[in-house]
Amino acid sequence: MDDVSQAARGGQGGDARLAALLQREGSAYDVAGVRQLLAGVRAAPPGHDPEAWMTLVVAVPSPALRRELSSLAAEADAASAAALSPAERLARLRAELARRGVHGFLVPRADEHQNEYVPSHAQRLAWLTGFTGSAGLAVVLPGTAAIFVDGRYTLQAQAEVDDTLYVRRHLTEQPASEWVAATLKPGETLAYDPHLHTAGEVERFRAAAEKAGGRLAPLPDNPLDAVWADRPPPPLAPVMRQDLRFAGESAEQKRQALAMGLAAEQVDAVVLTAPDSIAWLLNIRGGDVPHTPLPLSFALLHADAGVDLFIDRRKLVPGLIEYLGNSVRIASPDSFGEALEQLGAARKRVQVDVASASAWVVHQLAEASAQIHRAADPCQLPKARKNPTELAGTRAAHRRDGAALTQFLAWIAETAPKGGLGEIAASDRLEAFRRHGEHFRDLSFPTISGAGANGAIVHYRASPRSERRLEPGTLYLVDSGAQYLDGTTDVTRTVAIGMPSAEMRDRFTRVLKGHIALATCRFPHGTTGSQLDALARRALWEVGLDYDHGTGHGVGSYLAVHEGPQRISKLPNTQALLPGMIVSDEPGYYKAGAYGIRIENLVVVTPVAATDGERELLGFETLTLAPIDRSLIDTALLDAAEIAWLDAYHARVAAELAPLVDAATRQWLTAATRPIRAA
Amino acid sequence: MDDVSQAARGGQGGDARLAALLQREGSAYDVAGVRQLLAGVRAAPPGHDPEAWMTLVVAVPSPALRRELSSLAAEADAASAAALSPAERLARLRAELARRGVHGFLVPRADEHQNEYVPSHAQRLAWLTGFTGSAGLAVVLPGTAAIFVDGRYTLQAQAEVDDTLYVRRHLTEQPASEWVAATLKPGETLAYDPHLHTAGEVERFRAAAEKAGGRLAPLPDNPLDAVWADRPPPPLAPVMRQDLRFAGESAEQKRQALAMGLAAEQVDAVVLTAPDSIAWLLNIRGGDVPHTPLPLSFALLHADAGVDLFIDRRKLVPGLIEYLGNSVRIASPDSFGEALEQLGAARKRVQVDVASASAWVVHQLAEASAQIHRAADPCQLPKARKNPTELAGTRAAHRRDGAALTQFLAWIAETAPKGGLGEIAASDRLEAFRRHGEHFRDLSFPTISGAGANGAIVHYRASPRSERRLEPGTLYLVDSGAQYLDGTTDVTRTVAIGMPSAEMRDRFTRVLKGHIALATCRFPHGTTGSQLDALARRALWEVGLDYDHGTGHGVGSYLAVHEGPQRISKLPNTQALLPGMIVSDEPGYYKAGAYGIRIENLVVVTPVAATDGERELLGFETLTLAPIDRSLIDTALLDAAEIAWLDAYHARVAAELAPLVDAATRQWLTAATRPIRAA
Repeated sequence: MDDVSQAARGGQGGDARLAALLQREGSAYDVAGVRQLLAGVRAAPPGHDPEAWMTLVVAVPSPALRRELSSLAAEADAASAAALSPAERLARLRAELARRGVHGFLVPRADEHQNEYVPSHAQRLAWLTGFTGSAGLAVVLPGTAAIFVDGRYTLQAQAEVDDTLYVRRHLTEQPASEWVAATLKPGETLAYDPHLHTAGEVERFRAAAEKAGGRLAPLPDNPLDAVWADRPPPPLAPVMRQDLRFAGESAEQKRQALAMGLAAEQVDAVVLTAPDSIAWLLNIRGGDVPHTPLPLSFALLHADAGVDLFIDRRKLVPGLIEYLGNSVRIASPDSFGEALEQLGAARKRVQVDVASASAWVVHQLAEASAQIHRAADPCQLPKARKNPTELAGTRAAHRRDGAALTQFLAWIAETAPKGGLGEIAASDRLEAFRRHGEHFRDLSFPTISGAGANGAIVHYRASPRSERRLEPGTLYLVDSGAQYLDGTTDVTRTVAIGMPSAEMRDRFTRVLKGHIALATCRFPHGTTGSQLDALARRALWEVGLDYDHGTGHGVGSYLAVHEGPQRISKLPNTQALLPGMIVSDEPGYYKAGAYGIRIENLVVVTPVAATDGERELLGFETLTLAPIDRSLIDTALLDAAEIAWLDAYHARVAAELAPLVDAATRQWLTAATRPIRAA
Repeated sequence: MDDVSQAARGGQGGDARLAALLQREGSAYDVAGVRQLLAGVRAAPPGHDPEAWMTLVVAVPSPALRRELSSLAAEADAASAAALSPAERLARLRAELARRGVHGFLVPRADEHQNEYVPSHAQRLAWLTGFTGSAGLAVVLPGTAAIFVDGRYTLQAQAEVDDTLYVRRHLTEQPASEWVAATLKPGETLAYDPHLHTAGEVERFRAAAEKAGGRLAPLPDNPLDAVWADRPPPPLAPVMRQDLRFAGESAEQKRQALAMGLAAEQVDAVVLTAPDSIAWLLNIRGGDVPHTPLPLSFALLHADAGVDLFIDRRKLVPGLIEYLGNSVRIASPDSFGEALEQLGAARKRVQVDVASASAWVVHQLAEASAQIHRAADPCQLPKARKNPTELAGTRAAHRRDGAALTQFLAWIAETAPKGGLGEIAASDRLEAFRRHGEHFRDLSFPTISGAGANGAIVHYRASPRSERRLEPGTLYLVDSGAQYLDGTTDVTRTVAIGMPSAEMRDRFTRVLKGHIALATCRFPHGTTGSQLDALARRALWEVGLDYDHGTGHGVGSYLAVHEGPQRISKLPNTQALLPGMIVSDEPGYYKAGAYGIRIENLVVVTPVAATDGERELLGFETLTLAPIDRSLIDTALLDAAEIAWLDAYHARVAAELAPLVDAATRQWLTAATRPIRAA
């Protein structure tokens, strides 16, 4: 705390007032404790209610205490650390490595949960290199360093990363392990933080280092953290219950069901390292990372259905411990390693998902002589298969979300032709429409609002410097979604501003044919998403086109907008599509420098009413409700079945959304959803 | 040798005559040596020239020596060992296990090459249990034993295996490891022969044994072999060169190209355990197993392009060592283990394909402290991508093969309606047509000749007891192929005998739609067979039907009729389809107890002439030439593009085959290939 902020709060007087209020209202914290708590709170996203953290201080703070806490938070906001240049950061890291007697270090964009969603205190790659994309890795060696990003982030890395400091490589086409094998010098030691890599990654880098005549070595603590002076603490967003009316199954039931599975496999305990698994299992939600209501934590689920939950107690809202019940024992995250050791010492048979657990977890168990049973995280599959309550919730959330998106599309149709509308203003407007919806908590990811050539950047994020206006003769692509208490949404629509070209209509129609082919396909039990992926691409392949992303990802229930284990992708995936799984259906086409097209609905796997065939079939029910731009469809390319699907979908969109939108939007909706066949 | 056969050859007189001839003609063998050689020869299939083995005795045996050698072979044929009952075999194995202090034993249907094609001396599962299918595993425990076979072999295992001795289980749905985990008793040791399992299999069984509280242990030699009294020796079929005019690339070129790849990976040597890889690399062919021209051997390819070939010298035909050249050093199979040890002792970096190498190989290298580099067998991919000479050869072989099949189909069309034709007579006739073809060497697998309900058994093999007549109102399915010096074929046709039912025509047409969808699809580089599989199933899925086998397998060039790494299957496969790869396109439909349908052509991956699109596309060129039964097609179910494909295919079949068949067949062919569109 510096003098300036002290003064703003009245110097020591502010602290004294706060101390008195804390004592009077029975808080467990003194002023120093509140300051530490606040540091953690500020390391989490602000969340739906930016003052919710105050209930962590006392359950019902008085207006006076609320004022003091606000003031303290404002003071913290005003403080700022002097930023080091990227060159200085790299130099300090190299010096620290030298001090520890190692030559190189791996800096992944990963935290200890190997999660897509990484809190600020684990944004080491961004701190070191400036790269803020959602996937990447840097390798720092004595004389050189490299950063590896995938095709989505090539342009972004160019803009963010100093190429006098880092060689830029393609993450999958020029694997970092190959670069290590070619660049590490004989006798050199490449170090890594075992909390931040899976065992499989470690093996790949070990082989690469050995190929180079060097070696790979874990470090007990992260040398980057030692030089990251203003590193935020772990986030402390309030952890709340997820009500049974949304979750559909009690945590007790879930724990008992999983425990029976463990007992059947003669497993004593399973290590849970995925925060969304723990959130699902215990019916809790938090806010430690942006846009995904995760409380970061680790857990052990025992065969007796008891749970050890390793989480900072300070973030549990009042009543949460009672809600979790006696079978859920709260422990400090610091004691997680010791708990793993104890399992080993007791010669327990411990299940761990080596695809997602860190190498440190596996090593800790192995060193302690636990019997390691490698198997998938047992929460994954039941979490992916939504129960009837969750399905009813997601259908309701999709109606609400569809109404907001439809209001937005009608507004675009009216506003864009007037000229001057920018990408950011557009996405702000869309967010405003969504915020009115019941149970709205957050966007489910930063909206992709791409006009013209920006639409061709698959993971585009508009900035004041990059944004374009929505201009006649161009396409506008908007990929967005929201977190509602009863469901998570994710939808993409592409609309023509003014008159589209024949080529745009051809491409859009081929994307639509792929979307419909997937939405309408029927398949036997046991079919995986990998088997269906080509259906969505075939109309593009016919004319030598394709898109460089997956066709569908799983979606959580007020949880992660990307979840497994199912996936519809070119990449092999062995998980059968099972009733209740939600996946996206989102083929696209991108013409670099010109335009982008994507049509994305969420669909849920459902049994198909009996046919005269021999096998029970599954199919998809479409959840997302919003018009698909008819002006972009070349109906000559559609067959009768495709037209029938589109007309039926639009009829349903009109019927379900009309009651939820204003009169002007309703009028636009009627026109936007009129049937092709009658046209 | 027993007295009876001695007498047939004139007793000691025969041996004396043989000894004199051997000496006079400069053979390296004495009579005892020839007897041992003959034992090995008789452990191999008879091959294309059943007397070719005599050139192994002397390069050009005299007529007198040939007579003596024939007589010796006849004497060996006459000898027979008293067969033990399956119960006695199992009892003797259990006694041997007890003698060695272990409780159980794994008996896979595998030899030390983990190959689909297993020679007689490694047919341990068949000897022990009587089960002769091409995949399976027995687990013998003190009080119980189980045999695991897949769905193809359920009926066959019922017929062949005594169910008072063996519990029958499904190989993939009820994995043997689960049975072990549930059945092995605490403290018991389950043993295995490390030559007969991959390291991955060993790990699965180790986990299962430990779960049961027991342990898994390798045995230095196979206890079953110790009680298998009349076990044949390793096969000794003559090993011959594969001429450059068929192979298209010299062994020297292949060795150099692979060696460069090894050097680039800083690998000192690669262990080759797959006999077809070695046959491809060295341009040699043999006959140690039925229907696939494999010389069984092991090899080490060094980074200097030199090869150590571990093979019994006696099976190399005269001149072969010179043909292989100085860079290929011949060594005894017995010295293979020692060679692995030496690589380890020299601290070499050794590449091994752990998916196909035995656990013994991996263990041998690891124990000797070699640096193990796990990577795919480097012969696999270049072997799968046929060069222009191989492609020209396969096209020629397919014309010959198509002509033979077409003559057969014309003959069936004439003969079957007369009644009385049986499955075995039919397949004999087909084989006779094929034998006339130039470069014919063997069938590529035992013909599947299935009439009526037998056609629904996917891996059916007709026996006098099982065979049916081809009767009016039924379907006849024939899946067959041949080994020609210039290519390997594999084709299935299903024909109606008399008038088919509407259901049969519906099903056949859906299978045809799937066949055409795959044959005509275009796809970008990088696409795998797993991605395309659903295209072949979609028309069946629509009405709740499917088939329980893969859609396509790779095919060798005068090599294995099943080869990898590519595959078109529901199962995940990460190998992209690359130009030059041959795969089958063989969707089917099977109605148990009624009929079976399969339409199989071989196709080769080829670049597609440029489109206006952005990506270079690949597609398939159909290799197989034979009419598809028009009487089974419901044209109302086909769209215009499908009819166009069928008509164009039939026009090509007629044009290419008409010059190769007799007049009567030509007349039939013209009718069988007339266009649908004109009809």
